Amino acid sequence: MAPLTQIVDPHGISEAHGHTRPSRRSPMSASSPLFVVLAAGKGTRMRSGVPKVLHKIAGQSMLAHVLGTVSEVPGGVAVVIASDMDAVATEAQRIMPSAQVFIQPSQRGTADAVLAARPALDHQNGDVIVLYADTPLIRSETLSRLRAALDGGANIAVLGFRPMDASGYGRLLTDHNGALVAIREEKDASDAERLIDLCNSGVMAFRVPNISDLLGRIGNANAKGEFYLTDAVEIGVRSGLTATVVECSEDEVLGVNARDQLAAVEAIWQARARSQFMRDGVTMIAPETVWLSFDTRIASDVLIEPHVVFGLGVTVEEGARILGFCHFEGAVIGKGARIGPFARFRPGARIGADAHIGNFVEVKNTTLGPGAKANHLAYLGDGVIGAKANVGAGTIFCNYDGYAKHKTEIGDGAFIGSNASLVAPVSIGAGAYIGSGSVITRDVSAGALALERSTQEERPGWAERFRTLMARRKATR
Amino acid sequence: MAPLTQIVDPHGISEAHGHTRPSRRSPMSASSPLFVVLAAGKGTRMRSGVPKVLHKIAGQSMLAHVLGTVSEVPGGVAVVIASDMDAVATEAQRIMPSAQVFIQPSQRGTADAVLAARPALDHQNGDVIVLYADTPLIRSETLSRLRAALDGGANIAVLGFRPMDASGYGRLLTDHNGALVAIREEKDASDAERLIDLCNSGVMAFRVPNISDLLGRIGNANAKGEFYLTDAVEIGVRSGLTATVVECSEDEVLGVNARDQLAAVEAIWQARARSQFMRDGVTMIAPETVWLSFDTRIASDVLIEPHVVFGLGVTVEEGARILGFCHFEGAVIGKGARIGPFARFRPGARIGADAHIGNFVEVKNTTLGPGAKANHLAYLGDGVIGAKANVGAGTIFCNYDGYAKHKTEIGDGAFIGSNASLVAPVSIGAGAYIGSGSVITRDVSAGALALERSTQEERPGWAERFRTLMARRKATR
Amino acid sequence: MAPLTQIVDPHGISEAHGHTRPSRRSPMSASSPLFVVLAAGKGTRMRSGVPKVLHKIAGQSMLAHVLGTVSEVPGGVAVVIASDMDAVATEAQRIMPSAQVFIQPSQRGTADAVLAARPALDHQNGDVIVLYADTPLIRSETLSRLRAALDGGANIAVLGFRPMDASGYGRLLTDHNGALVAIREEKDASDAERLIDLCNSGVMAFRVPNISDLLGRIGNANAKGEFYLTDAVEIGVRSGLTATVVECSEDEVLGVNARDQLAAVEAIWQARARSQFMRDGVTMIAPETVWLSFDTRIASDVLIEPHVVFGLGVTVEEGARILGFCHFEGAVIGKGARIGPFARFRPGARIGADAHIGNFVEVKNTTLGPGAKANHLAYLGDGVIGAKANVGAGTIFCNYDGYAKHKTEIGDGAFIGSNASLVAPVSIGAGAYIGSGSVITRDVSAGALALERSTQEERPGWAERFRTLMARRKATR
Repeated sequence: MAPLTQIVDPHGISEAHGHTRPSRRSPMSASSPLFVVLAAGKGTRMRSGVPKVLHKIAGQSMLAHVLGTVSEVPGGVAVVIASDMDAVATEAQRIMPSAQVFIQPSQRGTADAVLAARPALDHQNGDVIVLYADTPLIRSETLSRLRAALDGGANIAVLGFRPMDASGYGRLLTDHNGALVAIREEKDASDAERLIDLCNSGVMAFRVPNISDLLGRIGNANAKGEFYLTDAVEIGVRSGLTATVVECSEDEVLGVNARDQLAAVEAIWQARARSQFMRDGVTMIAPETVWLSFDTRIASDVLIEPHVVFGLGVTVEEGARILGFCHFEGAVIGKGARIGPFARFRPGARIGADAHIGNFVEVKNTTLGPGAKANHLAYLGDGVIGAKANVGAGTIFCNYDGYAKHKTEIGDGAFIGSNASLVAPVSIGAGAYIGSGSVITRDVSAGALALERSTQEERPGWAERFRTLMARRKATR
Repeated sequence: MAPLTQIVDPHGISEAHGHTRPSRRSPMSASSPLFVVLAAGKGTRMRSGVPKVLHKIAGQSMLAHVLGTVSEVPGGVAVVIASDMDAVATEAQRIMPSAQVFIQPSQRGTADAVLAARPALDHQNGDVIVLYADTPLIRSETLSRLRAALDGGANIAVLGFRPMDASGYGRLLTDHNGALVAIREEKDASDAERLIDLCNSGVMAFRVPNISDLLGRIGNANAKGEFYLTDAVEIGVRSGLTATVVECSEDEVLGVNARDQLAAVEAIWQARARSQFMRDGVTMIAPETVWLSFDTRIASDVLIEPHVVFGLGVTVEEGARILGFCHFEGAVIGKGARIGPFARFRPGARIGADAHIGNFVEVKNTTLGPGAKANHLAYLGDGVIGAKANVGAGTIFCNYDGYAKHKTEIGDGAFIGSNASLVAPVSIGAGAYIGSGSVITRDVSAGALALERSTQEERPGWAERFRTLMARRKATR
Repeated sequence: MAPLTQIVDPHGISEAHGHTRPSRRSPMSASSPLFVVLAAGKGTRMRSGVPKVLHKIAGQSMLAHVLGTVSEVPGGVAVVIASDMDAVATEAQRIMPSAQVFIQPSQRGTADAVLAARPALDHQNGDVIVLYADTPLIRSETLSRLRAALDGGANIAVLGFRPMDASGYGRLLTDHNGALVAIREEKDASDAERLIDLCNSGVMAFRVPNISDLLGRIGNANAKGEFYLTDAVEIGVRSGLTATVVECSEDEVLGVNARDQLAAVEAIWQARARSQFMRDGVTMIAPETVWLSFDTRIASDVLIEPHVVFGLGVTVEEGARILGFCHFEGAVIGKGARIGPFARFRPGARIGADAHIGNFVEVKNTTLGPGAKANHLAYLGDGVIGAKANVGAGTIFCNYDGYAKHKTEIGDGAFIGSNASLVAPVSIGAGAYIGSGSVITRDVSAGALALERSTQEERPGWAERFRTLMARRKATR
């Protein structure tokens, strides 16, 4: 089956989203799994105008995290959304153009949600794995272990975990052989069953002849009147299917229903990422104060001081040293560069090897050559700075005229005196000097000195007279 | 009884503090409780020149926290201080003008401290609740539960808790009906009693015919020679009163005797506040790096990045986005504004809707209109900036002449070129342009361009000659 | 024995490092211990070009921490390194010139490593204590307790601890009298032995007739073919020596093999240091966001807001107030000074009593007199600023000409207008005024006003015409 880039409404109202792009995946073999990603939850406890699964972890949506994880395993992907979630469909197809998006018209439970993807289920010859877009920490290895359990003979494999505190979770009931016989919601559990600490994550893998038929037999005779996917275990086992449990850590199956849980999942993601970087040879003095994005890249023997935020799209090369209180996005930091404290990089900052940027300096869309320096209170926007050039304290690239951004070029080895204003478009030749405090509006030749300055005047005694006057005024008030 | 704004010294030396302001509370009904807040502890372990209960949590004194909590329950308030604590009396009356302040002349134990408020006790017809100014996390719901226990028939209700580690705490001894029979200090406890994990918080509520009489029967035949309030339980029960325990979490009754405990209480306060904001719809990527004040207000769908400090008096309106490394106090941040990273707001910063302030910009006593921008390295002090005005990088409002602060006005849609100095008082008309690097000392008309600049000069080859000279000097050294 | 400043290769290839400096220690008495610090581990899991024991905790190498701790106990010190570790030898002798450095030619286990110091062992009449340069949190009190155990009659004292999770550690096997009989590696332990929670830290103290002989009897008939120091216990006990266990907390014996462990040890060090400062009277609102160096000094009643980094060499005097987001190194902050937020001090910053530095201000090699102020966006490098001088927003000390750094002097009570550039070398007299935006290149007399400024020009209607033009261009594009 070649997945289609479209939204399928099982109730007949189909809606196309964007153009049908060629799939980036090869057609599935008969045994490729279908991942059904449930993303229809309203998330009212988030108290947000943004759909729950579009809230971000490490700079990308929870949905994108889950799609990224399933993309590590070959197979098809169906995303189930609610009817008013165009933004979720757009995100799904942005991240994975081959994903099919289905609409669940009303929220009638997880089994109903999976059945919203019935067109995909009915085309599927292999395994079906159901997971959740609001549970973004699940690992692809865990998905592989679920499939291995099916390979081992089970028709249904349920992902279980043993939480610190089991209260509130459904319990996984196993027989004396360890086979799963039912999932019991806590409110329906006996006292003995409540002592079981193996809990249901909701993630399930199926290798059954006809999954739509199995799920169609699930009823809604319960308090909420919903169709629960978990009932598939008991129904399946009663009709001769076998079920089993695959265990994972509690962390992996933490779901997000409110913003404090979003923060908790963010914290776990960050802890995982920091540990990985440290194992790969990055020193973080205070890892818990360093915030990474999903696409941050840091090479070995980089030192990172406390309090650094890596926004989207940042690469740090070997041996660079990042001092405290830096905020980066869209930047490349070259080998051996020394950055911060208090450096701010915005998209297009490309810092050359062994360059120094520090102390209240902002760089945007500017390339610095090897060994270039801008160490104090500067704004470098839309420029190119040559190797070993020195940009003095307080220098501003005046790149904007209210309508367009213009370019500043500084040649190799040039020296920009402190507090200079370079009014772009402007070019400073290699090795040139710019006098402190000058406003430079015309190009400067290589090797020249350029100055814009009036004569210093002195009015002797003025300050003394001013003080006397002010003191007298104060006295007469 | 109408509480008086005065300090009462039970030993006859009464001292009035400030003016007697009209009470903000209605006169108490017969059943209104009297809260006795003990604040006389010296706090020597704080090693501070500041009285212990004036040390701050979330920007306000511990005493103010406790007075704020008791003010949620109608009733009178008596604060007991030591004789050299004028600053504490002042703070009590600043926060709650109706509070009576009493002096305990010497530190002779908690029962003695409560009896220092005897004039208030003897006027009191209803309940008396004793709590502590160095235990600022107690909740008003807990105080209500104490009173409910009295309504349930107890004469004395003691607030108990079950700590992770009970060692060091007094234990609450109950009979087989759960009634409280005594409070046993750990050093006096038997081995069996030490196994009890229900501990004494010190907070107690009384509904007894004559509390002064009960407390007067407490002796000081103990190692320290002090009169302990806890002894009231055993004495009361022996004379036929009934006592009971109300439980709360350990967090609520954490007391502060040293600065590490102050930090621990601050951490709990902050965690509570962050959770509440997240439940109310605020996203905090790294809540543990966001520091709030007791009066911080943040609307829903505000995003807060890591490392933000909210000082006193900050309001953030809906949909604003606060990037990392910001420090605010006395500021209003409008709807949809984008702030930071590295923004610093001081009192009187009023940022309009959809305005942008970022990257090393300080705003003080300045109002920015909707959509105004100041994105880089600027100081905006004592000004008014019109809608959609653009303040270039490095702009400084020169607001101070060494004696007074002066005002800078910028009209709607004006464009202030980079590195400009606006010497206040000065007014820039709507839509005007200011040339980069100009020092503007006179008003600029609407729609005009103003410039202050000399001619750029170039000295060809100067830099090369300078380098040659410097290299020669170095060689001959 | 007077320790020699040299590296001794037991296999005959001796290499001298630096000059033989006079020992700072007095010659050991017969009972002075010899500390053997093992520092030869390769640390491949660090994935670093830097030898493991030179990675830093609180700004100094792990090796330096251990040498600092042993220096609190009189005795000799031998450091054992691998053959390619000149930098480690240099660090050992920088920190402790009297230390002897020995080379272990190949990594053949801990007993072999200790025997690499054979020349020192064979001169030693007293105790020998073996510890590890990658275990930097051990306390000198613990070393003293080890020696006390020897004084109590044991020949061997092993430092043990009870970890949260014992798996992976060697277990300490004791007899019914509590005497240590053997150290069992986990893989060799019986099920019963694995239940023992008392684990081996590796730190051992010996008072035996001939330690080289004892260690020489250790074999390498094990999986790795290494000579394990732990075997000394069983061999010694079998030959009639007595052994005992001294316990310490798990924290103290945390070893560092990878960068996440380095961060974990850093976190413990920081927590210890913050607690000590708080006990000594420093308020930290958010101690977990404050990072200290091994040599940080902070007086009492200093207030530190969240997010402050103390680099090397910082002293803060009484009553100073440090607001958030500051980064310091090599600075002295005077009594009652108010610093930050967003202050950056580099070496040589000396801030006078009651001075104010804040809001994006960098100070380097500059002394500020009492009550001086620089509150906004300034760079103060290589200067001297008089008492009560006021440095306006955006002021830059232009201290560098591309070759040398020059000095800026500002007299008492001078007022530097905003956005001024002071081109060093330059001197501003006491009480002088500098006009906003001026570039000052010549000295200014006391009491004078100095200005460098052109005439402000206005081009009426220019901005309106510019806007019309830009709008037309946009329309025709």
